[in-house]
Amino acid sequence: MDWLNQVRWDSRGLVPVIAQQLGSNDVLMFAYMNRDALQQTVASGQAVYWSRSRQRLWHKGEDSGHIQRVHELRLDCDGDVVLLKVEQLGGDPGPDAIACHTGRHSCFFRILKNNAWQIVEPVLKDPKRIYK
Amino acid sequence: MDWLNQVRWDSRGLVPVIAQQLGSNDVLMFAYMNRDALQQTVASGQAVYWSRSRQRLWHKGEDSGHIQRVHELRLDCDGDVVLLKVEQLGGDPGPDAIACHTGRHSCFFRILKNNAWQIVEPVLKDPKRIYK
Repeated sequence: MDWLNQVRWDSRGLVPVIAQQLGSNDVLMFAYMNRDALQQTVASGQAVYWSRSRQRLWHKGEDSGHIQRVHELRLDCDGDVVLLKVEQLGGDPGPDAIACHTGRHSCFFRILKNNAWQIVEPVLKDPKRIYK
Repeated sequence: MDWLNQVRWDSRGLVPVIAQQLGSNDVLMFAYMNRDALQQTVASGQAVYWSRSRQRLWHKGEDSGHIQRVHELRLDCDGDVVLLKVEQLGGDPGPDAIACHTGRHSCFFRILKNNAWQIVEPVLKDPKRIYK
């Protein structure tokens, strides 16, 4: 498919992906997709990434229940980065709550302040209760 | 410095960086930093990236005038992605206008629609007038 060929896949066959919250525009997480993952994301309307650590497709939410419904896919000027606008379904404490495996809203929960990375977002659900 | 060592630099000594507009939270661009770039960004308060194509430090705005003042630096859960909140200074047609080398507000100006990447953001300034 043409639109898939227009993505500039890196030497590993991957493209970096930024997931942004629909509405607030919070950046939730950063991951990678390969060709299959991007194709399945578009076909299903739910974010499917490529897990580099597990070397397999990773349907976001398959373990945690924190599924991402994709509302928009963007490609950058160089064709080598994808941006998703997502709505998070399912999972307690409610929709759009948790994207991070630490149980926080966003993976970007540390801010540099006084030469230290300081945690500024609370854990909304204990990861032990998310991943049983 | 401890906070620099806490970043998980990749095998090339780089970390991916997402730049987000202060206020609107628009994702403007995606680039990389090495250790020097991150250190200079924090020291100067302006975004300094590592240009992979030119293999040198790239003070954003050095040619275009579209400098990024950094208001916040975040690190993700794995310590291997940096998120900046920036305000764009200088450049016409005014502040916070252009981040992309194509003369558009954001590098993510193409949306997937009907199996094609469709341009949805206008060119605000002809690149020939930006890069003289």
